[in-house]
Amino acid sequence: MSADSLPTPPDVALGQFGFHTSDEQGAARRGWFNTPHGVVETPAFMPVGTNATVKGLSVHELEETGAQMVLSNAYHLYLRPGDKAVRALGGLHAFARWKGPMLTDSGGFQVFSLAQMRKVREEGIEFQSHLDGSKHNYTPEAVMRIERNIGADVIMQLDELIEGKSEFGPSREAMERSLRWLERCRIEFDRLERDGREALAPIDLPPGAPALHDDLETERVAPPQALFPIVQGGIHPELRRASVRGILQTGDWHGVAIGGLSVGEAKPDMYATIAVCDPELPRDKPRYLMGVGFPDDLVESVRRGVDLFDCVVPTRMGRHGTAFTPDGTVQIRRAEHRFDKRPLVEGCDCHTCTHYDRAYLRHLFAAEEMLGLRLLSLHNVHYLVGLMRQARVELAAGRYESWATAYLERYRARAGRK
Amino acid sequence: MSADSLPTPPDVALGQFGFHTSDEQGAARRGWFNTPHGVVETPAFMPVGTNATVKGLSVHELEETGAQMVLSNAYHLYLRPGDKAVRALGGLHAFARWKGPMLTDSGGFQVFSLAQMRKVREEGIEFQSHLDGSKHNYTPEAVMRIERNIGADVIMQLDELIEGKSEFGPSREAMERSLRWLERCRIEFDRLERDGREALAPIDLPPGAPALHDDLETERVAPPQALFPIVQGGIHPELRRASVRGILQTGDWHGVAIGGLSVGEAKPDMYATIAVCDPELPRDKPRYLMGVGFPDDLVESVRRGVDLFDCVVPTRMGRHGTAFTPDGTVQIRRAEHRFDKRPLVEGCDCHTCTHYDRAYLRHLFAAEEMLGLRLLSLHNVHYLVGLMRQARVELAAGRYESWATAYLERYRARAGRK
Repeated sequence: MSADSLPTPPDVALGQFGFHTSDEQGAARRGWFNTPHGVVETPAFMPVGTNATVKGLSVHELEETGAQMVLSNAYHLYLRPGDKAVRALGGLHAFARWKGPMLTDSGGFQVFSLAQMRKVREEGIEFQSHLDGSKHNYTPEAVMRIERNIGADVIMQLDELIEGKSEFGPSREAMERSLRWLERCRIEFDRLERDGREALAPIDLPPGAPALHDDLETERVAPPQALFPIVQGGIHPELRRASVRGILQTGDWHGVAIGGLSVGEAKPDMYATIAVCDPELPRDKPRYLMGVGFPDDLVESVRRGVDLFDCVVPTRMGRHGTAFTPDGTVQIRRAEHRFDKRPLVEGCDCHTCTHYDRAYLRHLFAAEEMLGLRLLSLHNVHYLVGLMRQARVELAAGRYESWATAYLERYRARAGRK
Repeated sequence: MSADSLPTPPDVALGQFGFHTSDEQGAARRGWFNTPHGVVETPAFMPVGTNATVKGLSVHELEETGAQMVLSNAYHLYLRPGDKAVRALGGLHAFARWKGPMLTDSGGFQVFSLAQMRKVREEGIEFQSHLDGSKHNYTPEAVMRIERNIGADVIMQLDELIEGKSEFGPSREAMERSLRWLERCRIEFDRLERDGREALAPIDLPPGAPALHDDLETERVAPPQALFPIVQGGIHPELRRASVRGILQTGDWHGVAIGGLSVGEAKPDMYATIAVCDPELPRDKPRYLMGVGFPDDLVESVRRGVDLFDCVVPTRMGRHGTAFTPDGTVQIRRAEHRFDKRPLVEGCDCHTCTHYDRAYLRHLFAAEEMLGLRLLSLHNVHYLVGLMRQARVELAAGRYESWATAYLERYRARAGRK
């Protein structure tokens, strides 16, 4: 088998939200996660489409990167256009034009990072919208109704986030509250499956516009979804262990997320925390590390048993002119690229690298042209999706550990020289 | 022949920059304009890529709109990245990745509309860059050297622009100066063809970057280009006639542009001025109306003998959320589109209309997402390119006049109702 060809998945019947693993190497493994919109091969990087669009990319470009599963944010869609509007328009897949699997974050992180004047109480989180200052009340139950309306395949519990360097006391309080909220999420999640969603208010359509639904009763049925719990506990090993145990006592989950990392803590603390969670988590369920997206973090975390990743970093850095390469990041605005006719990455098969050179990309950023933001965002998403594809190839060939060591050495070498 | 199929061009051997016409209906006609990068079927709309990129669109999207010839701006490229940098990188086609015909405006209009502290003297135009305030001197000779470095197929003379409503006296002065500058442009244009371009200064390349040129002597040879003169004279018929006669006395041109319109004058004055130029201009050369790009203006101007158009309007309006439709413009931000699952234009075969509905496009603009700007810009460029394609079909079928009347009636009807 060549280094770039990936064996076909094993002939295993995967139930709804079922997960199958193979090619284990230490904690690392390949996996197949079955969703109502297709199977996700893991390890996988999931691009983030905050507002039901991955910033700067069309859905067709996103497909071409090889992305399998795409995120969206319940917080943003709840505020605009509204979770009920997304549902009325046919749900998130129809709205965002993404045919593959999708996932929504509950908004716990966005309330923590974006909202103003937030008050966290046992009942839920009161906050003001970062858009217009309007007041909102996020309870575990409300978040389940919102995510059920939006309709992603995997939806996240409401959790309480705190600073990455928080002390033991506040870390424990947030972790324990997240566990209590998980239980309330589960109850409401099940109720919506059983009783159906609230009927939508009538909608005024412009003259000539087509009707939104054929059957209003069918529309009330909640789509098949999996609810993922989120491990919290800061960088305190015994809190992380307690969080996992609490989660596993609450229900039989289709997958588990690790949250509260990459929020200000040191990288070694992040890696150590993932390593603490690994032996506690069931090996037959996918593990999703939330909000982590630098190439070295992905490679290190797969080593520690993580299967799924998401992060806004590839598009955010792309908009700022920074591109991922196997030798670390490149800032395209630098004068050295002015007459450089090489692509961002030699041999990269993304649209950007096969069609445009560094000199032109630099010009686009100097001239503040939108195409530059697009092309670097596209390259970066392609890079991370491709990196996890390569990880699957290396796992299948039984050499993940040596490949990871070589990859990290090269990726970090230039930074080390400076 | 169906309404949408276009007959193949006649079997006529077109010389370099040759022009062949057929299917005349009054002043309107079909045409084929031969350039070193291919034949342009006219009437045609040319999208504008100010900074060697049509704002928001990739080259592949631009191709899909059916665009044949693309503009760029010598003023912008001279300031950034520099005309010599474009030349060092292989010229405009290689730089902008556009394989088809290209044209550069001389910068007369940009100096008029963008530059600060400009002083117009007989020698040329002194101005300060709108980017950094640096001082520059635009003479007819300098502009020819700049456009020869950039390397488009068709390049424009330096002309003096004035307000659209200017009185007879200043209009005459600017028109006569433009004629004198045309003569100086022609002499320098010919000299550069004969003697070759100035050698480029040596360029420092980053380690590992490929060399820019194999043969530095060959690189000095000016590419095959056509210089177009520009008719001026404001809205004063006798000045426009004098301008055309002066231009035709100065040389045997491959085409003639009509400038100084759509700069503040009333629309009836613009149409009347085009009609004044029509019988004065040679019928066997393409006529290019500069900077005009609303659908009704295109249809009216083809009636008055115009073959080529350019304008930033489709992308500028697209970025502001305004879309062209056969019923006039649509502002996608309006609340009425919130639940409207129709495309911008029913039956439109552009990527935007075949993949996205008004409700989602409205959401993208409400959320200030880049994809919205892209998708409306793409639709608008496709709309104008397609409108001129339809004009060719109607000309071929001998029914341009009745089609134009019906098109304009529908396009203007909704505006009339309000």
